[in-house]
Amino acid sequence: MSQAIHFGPQVELADKVKADLRKVRHPHYGRYLEEFAPGQVFVHPRGFTFLPAQMEAFARTYMQCNPLYLNQEFARASGFAGLVASPQMVFNVVLSLGVQNDSEKAIANLGYYDAQFLRPVYAQDTIRSLTKVVERKERGAGKPGIVTIRTLGVNQRDEVVLQYQRKIMVAGQGERPATTPLPRSAGGGAPAFPWVDDAAVELPEFPARLPPGLTGPNSYFEDFSVGEIIVHANGRTITDEHLALTYAVGNTHPLHFDRVFSSGLSGKMSGDPIVYGGLVFAWLEGLASRDVSDNAVWELGFTEGYHTQPSVAGDTVAALSRVLAVEDAPGALGAHCGVVTFQFVGVKNTSAGSALTRHGADLFVKENDKKDLGKEKIDDKIFEIERRLLIRKRR
Amino acid sequence: MSQAIHFGPQVELADKVKADLRKVRHPHYGRYLEEFAPGQVFVHPRGFTFLPAQMEAFARTYMQCNPLYLNQEFARASGFAGLVASPQMVFNVVLSLGVQNDSEKAIANLGYYDAQFLRPVYAQDTIRSLTKVVERKERGAGKPGIVTIRTLGVNQRDEVVLQYQRKIMVAGQGERPATTPLPRSAGGGAPAFPWVDDAAVELPEFPARLPPGLTGPNSYFEDFSVGEIIVHANGRTITDEHLALTYAVGNTHPLHFDRVFSSGLSGKMSGDPIVYGGLVFAWLEGLASRDVSDNAVWELGFTEGYHTQPSVAGDTVAALSRVLAVEDAPGALGAHCGVVTFQFVGVKNTSAGSALTRHGADLFVKENDKKDLGKEKIDDKIFEIERRLLIRKRR
Amino acid sequence: MSQAIHFGPQVELADKVKADLRKVRHPHYGRYLEEFAPGQVFVHPRGFTFLPAQMEAFARTYMQCNPLYLNQEFARASGFAGLVASPQMVFNVVLSLGVQNDSEKAIANLGYYDAQFLRPVYAQDTIRSLTKVVERKERGAGKPGIVTIRTLGVNQRDEVVLQYQRKIMVAGQGERPATTPLPRSAGGGAPAFPWVDDAAVELPEFPARLPPGLTGPNSYFEDFSVGEIIVHANGRTITDEHLALTYAVGNTHPLHFDRVFSSGLSGKMSGDPIVYGGLVFAWLEGLASRDVSDNAVWELGFTEGYHTQPSVAGDTVAALSRVLAVEDAPGALGAHCGVVTFQFVGVKNTSAGSALTRHGADLFVKENDKKDLGKEKIDDKIFEIERRLLIRKRR
Repeated sequence: MSQAIHFGPQVELADKVKADLRKVRHPHYGRYLEEFAPGQVFVHPRGFTFLPAQMEAFARTYMQCNPLYLNQEFARASGFAGLVASPQMVFNVVLSLGVQNDSEKAIANLGYYDAQFLRPVYAQDTIRSLTKVVERKERGAGKPGIVTIRTLGVNQRDEVVLQYQRKIMVAGQGERPATTPLPRSAGGGAPAFPWVDDAAVELPEFPARLPPGLTGPNSYFEDFSVGEIIVHANGRTITDEHLALTYAVGNTHPLHFDRVFSSGLSGKMSGDPIVYGGLVFAWLEGLASRDVSDNAVWELGFTEGYHTQPSVAGDTVAALSRVLAVEDAPGALGAHCGVVTFQFVGVKNTSAGSALTRHGADLFVKENDKKDLGKEKIDDKIFEIERRLLIRKRR
Repeated sequence: MSQAIHFGPQVELADKVKADLRKVRHPHYGRYLEEFAPGQVFVHPRGFTFLPAQMEAFARTYMQCNPLYLNQEFARASGFAGLVASPQMVFNVVLSLGVQNDSEKAIANLGYYDAQFLRPVYAQDTIRSLTKVVERKERGAGKPGIVTIRTLGVNQRDEVVLQYQRKIMVAGQGERPATTPLPRSAGGGAPAFPWVDDAAVELPEFPARLPPGLTGPNSYFEDFSVGEIIVHANGRTITDEHLALTYAVGNTHPLHFDRVFSSGLSGKMSGDPIVYGGLVFAWLEGLASRDVSDNAVWELGFTEGYHTQPSVAGDTVAALSRVLAVEDAPGALGAHCGVVTFQFVGVKNTSAGSALTRHGADLFVKENDKKDLGKEKIDDKIFEIERRLLIRKRR
Repeated sequence: MSQAIHFGPQVELADKVKADLRKVRHPHYGRYLEEFAPGQVFVHPRGFTFLPAQMEAFARTYMQCNPLYLNQEFARASGFAGLVASPQMVFNVVLSLGVQNDSEKAIANLGYYDAQFLRPVYAQDTIRSLTKVVERKERGAGKPGIVTIRTLGVNQRDEVVLQYQRKIMVAGQGERPATTPLPRSAGGGAPAFPWVDDAAVELPEFPARLPPGLTGPNSYFEDFSVGEIIVHANGRTITDEHLALTYAVGNTHPLHFDRVFSSGLSGKMSGDPIVYGGLVFAWLEGLASRDVSDNAVWELGFTEGYHTQPSVAGDTVAALSRVLAVEDAPGALGAHCGVVTFQFVGVKNTSAGSALTRHGADLFVKENDKKDLGKEKIDDKIFEIERRLLIRKRR
């Protein structure tokens, strides 16, 4: 059903309405420290319909090499319903959808924890994002506090596709006007927030045979042994493209795309727009993907993720992986797949090989632990995380 | 039906054919002043099939926040047939398709008038563009003249989706060779040009209920009152990406992507490629969209649009809106929706808030009126327009 | 069928596993000279599902103006099954899929030969790439050798869509560790490699009538005469975008996106990342497309293609075409279409017109022949090739 409506011609009005400087509104987004209340649930705006060309574009932008994200025939032959959205894309989108409520006023992203990808996202799925405030830690007057939040990505069938926890550093409101209030919840109470500890992962049945030759020969489960360090050969120079890519995943924090804002800050974040951390993680993961994940059938998730230095346009990033654990997958799946946990480290403006030569084993000591261990922080280290992959056995 | 044809091997020929410098062709596009004849109709080349991933990509590139352009489930729940192409994208594409005939030789785009979006563009729609020359104003020998044109965007069912008027400044041909002639029209006469004054807008029936939480709480019809000024918080730094984005919408004017051409010019446009104005408009609109248009059900159109300063890569743009009129929508629609007219202003290399502090009410005086009012032009103001939106009531 | 599996919570492990610097792996890709054995067949990884929005995005990124790649209605009206992937995109993708085996260790791409586009690639087609080593020419100890390879692009029905030959310059392994070995072939023997000399081209039946006005009036078969030189008006400034575009087509050579790598090289390639040649070819082809190929019904292929100078971000490229041959298409097709062979030349940091004025006929002498002819190489010439198009007659 449609309607045909005449609105009449648009006539020029500006010079007929006096500009009144007493009626000025400054809508602001994000939340100041006082605006976070434990238990509160934010329903994030917009949502995001995943479309196949976008899914491929994301995988290619960060050079994710697993053909599940690039080759529809391979994805189907692997048991999936169609081309699979890279979990890294799902993470970037779900986090970004939440920035408007969670972190558009945040000073820093302190860490990612307990991220779990619970089911595939396919073309035509529409993902919404929800956040629950877990904890607000104040650290004294005038000091920014620390807020712990949990975020869910939910598809159009209300199934959770991703859950993770995040800590952010947020300043108090001070003299500043309050931010845009939350919409009232439909029923009045807090919206449902179906977080599940140790949630089940919904995966397809994996067939025994796959099209040959489309994945690397050296990245099967059997190729990884505990303690091994893998130096990923290529780096990637990040350009100004990152401003547009921040927009592309829907992240609304001006630190990443507004030079007037970023150069008005003081301290380490002042100057050129800082690359949104999710993009840095994505590039690093892509650089590693030929060596560790092109035979993965699933990204189980990650924890203990820290951006230890910011990156800006012009920086070249590179990555190293270290095998922390290898074990058979649970139950019958164990005959065909194993779980590999990697420590994953990013560096900048050096090759991964040179970074290893220069810093040795210290590259794999967490930056937050360095002080207690009497060690120096490593300036060219930008990221560290532990990630867990479900990887095909060679058989 | 297909045919299998042998063309024979390709053999090297270059050294067997002498280069003859007397047989040189220089195809040129656009029209010089003398080449515009009032009444003439240009059928623009190529056309443009709208695809869903492109439509989302456009909305994200400029951070249009209305979920109609981003979330297929929301678009359907809102009464539309599917994901909706952002009207801003439709405008950019229709104008760009016409550049090859209308303005590839233009010196400046003087203004946009009476733009009306007459029906939604959906995925798989193929849009063509047509232009009719309305007026050619000569201003004396050696001086560029002013050409007024009307342009239509038409879909594959020959329905007009957009119409607008534009004035451009064009130089005479002088000593230069003529541009590429128009193709002969199929029937011999001028092609049909179905412009309609005060045309009806074809809209879906809007359902009473929508998915909650996906749009902002403060941008319903009732939230806007005449005279109010809204300062949009974030800016956007434009990078070299604009060259590629000019290509992406199909704009063929070399001023926007050919540094050899742009640095060979004299005057204000000399130097780095100038950002195509349609892109500037799109970014500004996106920056405003959380505050004014994420509860819009339709962009009715705009008029009195002027790019008052050029932008180049490196500039940071920001925006302000001023409410010029609020009224109920006509007929039964008025129970659920209202029409809001905004004056919309863009600035560069300043935050929107600082620009308001510095320039006050003068920011909302049209630059073209400044001289008559004895006021100075504002250098950091880059754009002004009046736009009219159909916005949901909160009820 | 799906399965719900509990993997248990992910626990922090990094500080429990000692970093062991004796267990370091450096996976490397590409092949050193000794690793190429004539007769050997590489099945390249990943594959690439062509999606319509990507196909349009490619055509727009390089401003390919033939509506076959941009307008689905036009493509169908022209006899094709739907929107057609630009052959230039197919070439870029097929070559890039092979870089991981063929040329990620190559020093230079020496030339393209005998490229033939054998059938259209449509949306949803998944293309794989295969390479056969034809010849390995050693040039003495310590000197890089020359490898000749043939590459096929094959769709999901095992039909060849593209075949071409390439010569690359590759250094020996020296002291360096071997690269990642090839996966074993499924059956044990070399995979099938269905190269066919003078292969048939599968084309649709072309209808007599087409939608009017969507292609240019001056680029029909009859418009081209042997010897004629066509100067393409506009140039294109290449920006840092090329790093992302290299990723977008799946090219894994770090020379194009890793400044730590590229600035560590010596000689002409040292410094900023070099633009991947396939992208340069694509931009040049797009700049020419309004003048020579928007009435083409098929790109038959190309040969004798040489990148004679590298390009970097900031360079502005421009193009010229010279008609080498015009002939009717074979058989019944000849009534409606002809074959035009062009010599196609790219220049940089000059307009095409200025380059012709400066260098005259020498612009069309192959750079490799210059020495024998006692002529100087032309520094601002970046590319030369001979291309063959099947072009509609005006009738």
